[in-house]
Amino acid sequence: MREIKEYCTIRLHDTDAAGILFFANQLKIVHDVYEQFMTRIDFPFRRRFEERDFYLPIVHTEADFFQPLAVGDTVEIILKIEAVGNSSFTLAYTLTDLDGIVVGTARTVHVTVDPATWKKIPLPEAFRKALVESVGD
Amino acid sequence: MREIKEYCTIRLHDTDAAGILFFANQLKIVHDVYEQFMTRIDFPFRRRFEERDFYLPIVHTEADFFQPLAVGDTVEIILKIEAVGNSSFTLAYTLTDLDGIVVGTARTVHVTVDPATWKKIPLPEAFRKALVESVGD
Amino acid sequence: MREIKEYCTIRLHDTDAAGILFFANQLKIVHDVYEQFMTRIDFPFRRRFEERDFYLPIVHTEADFFQPLAVGDTVEIILKIEAVGNSSFTLAYTLTDLDGIVVGTARTVHVTVDPATWKKIPLPEAFRKALVESVGD
Amino acid sequence: MREIKEYCTIRLHDTDAAGILFFANQLKIVHDVYEQFMTRIDFPFRRRFEERDFYLPIVHTEADFFQPLAVGDTVEIILKIEAVGNSSFTLAYTLTDLDGIVVGTARTVHVTVDPATWKKIPLPEAFRKALVESVGD
Repeated sequence: MREIKEYCTIRLHDTDAAGILFFANQLKIVHDVYEQFMTRIDFPFRRRFEERDFYLPIVHTEADFFQPLAVGDTVEIILKIEAVGNSSFTLAYTLTDLDGIVVGTARTVHVTVDPATWKKIPLPEAFRKALVESVGD
Repeated sequence: MREIKEYCTIRLHDTDAAGILFFANQLKIVHDVYEQFMTRIDFPFRRRFEERDFYLPIVHTEADFFQPLAVGDTVEIILKIEAVGNSSFTLAYTLTDLDGIVVGTARTVHVTVDPATWKKIPLPEAFRKALVESVGD
Repeated sequence: MREIKEYCTIRLHDTDAAGILFFANQLKIVHDVYEQFMTRIDFPFRRRFEERDFYLPIVHTEADFFQPLAVGDTVEIILKIEAVGNSSFTLAYTLTDLDGIVVGTARTVHVTVDPATWKKIPLPEAFRKALVESVGD
Repeated sequence: MREIKEYCTIRLHDTDAAGILFFANQLKIVHDVYEQFMTRIDFPFRRRFEERDFYLPIVHTEADFFQPLAVGDTVEIILKIEAVGNSSFTLAYTLTDLDGIVVGTARTVHVTVDPATWKKIPLPEAFRKALVESVGD
């Protein structure tokens, strides 16, 4: 696969009194797509907490908001792997409404750490392979 | 102390597109008061996660909503200990606006479990003592 | 239809440092099922905010938690209409894991209000009909 | 005032199963500081929803995470006004732990819109004045 595509519908609790998606919830929503991606490449979050072998905390994020989203709006979210480094990787997300208009973007930068010390470690080889192959042709 | 009193201001992310507090966030807010109470009786949550000696999951909750709360509304939250059993305890919360009107209530029932097995265990004696003394005259 | 059935997977942001679903998020999750139900009977939330004809705030809720739920756990949520009154209705939810074990329940009691005054009004007839027919044989 | 300083304690519901602050909640937390700032310069959110004169949606955000934050950790959050444009302004936040270590940063870019059309409008003069004076000597 070259990219992951998921659909998400804005829920009431994602909105605030301004009637639209609360900005931080756009990051919550794209994180759900990352979570589904990790399950699909057979590295589900759950296993990390059971094995406590490596965690993948986010060290940087950013997001743009081009259009307000209201409750009931469905968006298509495309996840792409932008970069895979020695001990980090970067994911980019594009949110598109059902008319094909890009309504927002997001990016998350992750590092690999040892859950015991929270120190940076290299990406485990099997995980790096799964990541890289997931974006291969 | 016989009761714990805290103040809470409704934040934008606590509301939804209806312009008022999203109902589940009332439980989030009273849980913050419970968290402050636990710190005050010297049983902060953090220590449980460090020592993994006992956890206190909620097995039942309920809440009433008498008045809508909007962003910027400040409520006084009073926590009372309603019952302390062998391996459980019940907390009751009353939310009052600044005119003294009761705007909501909540209740949480907690059990003591072993974090390794998630099986019920008796309330540790020191914790039970701290709980009971916190409500003593 | 006699009941609504949806599936929900516990996401990382639904959990807390104890490793399981934060209790208030069970109410957030069942509310999503209510939201999907409302769309299905052609009374989507969005239209209420556009028309400001009637809102359906929750005046009471309760929930039981029988089993801890971890990230990645999928539950089946069944929504049933327990009661339809003159200006209120009650929804009951049952959460079952994929082995058929009931892991939790919830209940929400809703009243109909005029969004301008936030005073109770009767259930609009078309909505009451849609609610009642949704549970008919 | 040249900067706004608030304290925030990480709550259980801010964390996830990795035991630390869920990344998007750092943005939720700094938004609370923005909300308190707006009240302090006499432009509380609530009034915007009552008067529906102008809204201030976020069009861009970014955040860095230097240290994991656990439940019970208290951080000092400093808000600075980085830029005030014709119809937008930028806020920068620095999160520091009680040892004075910078644990994270965030930035939010806001535009002024007409709530009826959601189209960009100039910053209302009184609001611009309050913003600029809030950062004056």
